[in-house]
Amino acid sequence: MSSNKIVECVPNFSEGRDLEKVEKIANAFRAKEGVKLLDYSTDKDHNRMVVTVVGEPEPLKKAVIEAISIAVDIIDLNHHEGQHPRMGAVDVIPFIPIRNVSMEEAINLSKEVAEEVVDKYNLPVYLYEKSASAPHRENLAAIRKGEFEGLKDKMQLPEWKPDFGPAQPHPAAGATVIGARMPLVAYNVNLNTDKLEIADVIARKVRFLGGGLRFCKAMGVELTDRGIVQVSMNLTDFTKTAIYRAHELVRVEANRYGVSIVGAEIIGLVPMDALIDTAAYYLGLEGFSTKQVLETHLME
Amino acid sequence: MSSNKIVECVPNFSEGRDLEKVEKIANAFRAKEGVKLLDYSTDKDHNRMVVTVVGEPEPLKKAVIEAISIAVDIIDLNHHEGQHPRMGAVDVIPFIPIRNVSMEEAINLSKEVAEEVVDKYNLPVYLYEKSASAPHRENLAAIRKGEFEGLKDKMQLPEWKPDFGPAQPHPAAGATVIGARMPLVAYNVNLNTDKLEIADVIARKVRFLGGGLRFCKAMGVELTDRGIVQVSMNLTDFTKTAIYRAHELVRVEANRYGVSIVGAEIIGLVPMDALIDTAAYYLGLEGFSTKQVLETHLME
Repeated sequence: MSSNKIVECVPNFSEGRDLEKVEKIANAFRAKEGVKLLDYSTDKDHNRMVVTVVGEPEPLKKAVIEAISIAVDIIDLNHHEGQHPRMGAVDVIPFIPIRNVSMEEAINLSKEVAEEVVDKYNLPVYLYEKSASAPHRENLAAIRKGEFEGLKDKMQLPEWKPDFGPAQPHPAAGATVIGARMPLVAYNVNLNTDKLEIADVIARKVRFLGGGLRFCKAMGVELTDRGIVQVSMNLTDFTKTAIYRAHELVRVEANRYGVSIVGAEIIGLVPMDALIDTAAYYLGLEGFSTKQVLETHLME
Repeated sequence: MSSNKIVECVPNFSEGRDLEKVEKIANAFRAKEGVKLLDYSTDKDHNRMVVTVVGEPEPLKKAVIEAISIAVDIIDLNHHEGQHPRMGAVDVIPFIPIRNVSMEEAINLSKEVAEEVVDKYNLPVYLYEKSASAPHRENLAAIRKGEFEGLKDKMQLPEWKPDFGPAQPHPAAGATVIGARMPLVAYNVNLNTDKLEIADVIARKVRFLGGGLRFCKAMGVELTDRGIVQVSMNLTDFTKTAIYRAHELVRVEANRYGVSIVGAEIIGLVPMDALIDTAAYYLGLEGFSTKQVLETHLME
């Protein structure tokens, strides 16, 4: 990639069973200059496809719009069933600033895509997360509540009028949620106890909802195979709620129960800066700049 | 950069005063497809220029050979003086494997450059570090001892016959040292004491020479401005002597003197893997792969 600006996009499509359709959608992200398909996965039970793609803003935007056009064409939510909640053929499209892109730019990108989708397919769009037009629309689950089947009625409520497009669902594709958000770090800390209640109580203390860290969601999980438990966290803005801070806070709370951290894991992708920040904290680095990381110069 | 293979090169040229000449040499690394000039610096007292460049092996090789040709053309060591030891117009050329390149490949690259330099300029070449043909030739200081002025006599000694080219110095450009080595991490740890002897004794214990870590050079340094001292280290293979291990060993030794670590610094460039390894250690990450770092996919 030649550009300085890199945005990530993780669109979710409501098709996880018909692999021919899945490939058609994935193809929108293949062999495109300035766009790189990192991963796509399907789940039959969820009947859902999750794509991870990075690229320069303009080429990425074009590829996303092409994928939407394909999905609207081939997915009919009237015949869709699966365990995962969904309200559209293109269920949700988050844009995530990665390199040399401000949140403002990612928000603009999300709105440009929304406008084009309405123009082209008359598909109603809700903006969410950082793009949201009101606080009650920041949360995906709140927007999606009622799902495809409840859309028609929900859209009549003034507080659930779509941000773009008509106040009635697309007959086959429902509605779409688009927005900008920070990269999410899925970070789990393992504890040397088999008592789920200990992981649960620690999770409640470190997470935002319980008075803990602002950009931390957390719950206790049992790792039955290993006879231990885990505090499973989503860090929704690692630039403000650092990995090391969540880690150390779990340690502090675990102390009270005579429990220790025995390991940790990062699930999926993590931005380089989140790990560099961690290294810099534990070493106590003074005056360190990401520009000192050799590889950052290879991405320019 | 489109290729997967990335090599770094840090050639040192014996010209740090005539900036017109310096620019001519730097130009060899500019506007070349597959080559990126990261930095170049000059020192008038040393009368020396240090270039940092990365690239795909073949384009990088061509650019380095072009720079050598320019340096041989415009630098005359008979009229060179400076504080830094030197024995050639092109004093030393290390090749450093960075991404998807084995040490073996970097060694081959160094030998290819050596052969071409001899063919084109009849410039004698010594191989050093991982490319060395004998253990006594691994160390740059040993090869360079006697400098340009002593080369003529030194080359007559069987143990100092050049690896490539004639056993007599190039009249103006002397001889050149070329080789492959691991990336070097310059890592300094600050201590809350003003006693240089404490930093010195810790340095002696953590470094290879004193029975410490195999790929660690170290010395004590006074930071007079701040009234503290520092253990200044060069980690010559961070994949075997990790940053965190050197850090923790300094801490362990400092304990004996009732002294604590109050900060640290990385000087210059550092490979991403060295910092990720550090983060993974302190968090206790299980099963983490560099492929999970989002940015690694942007470099492919």
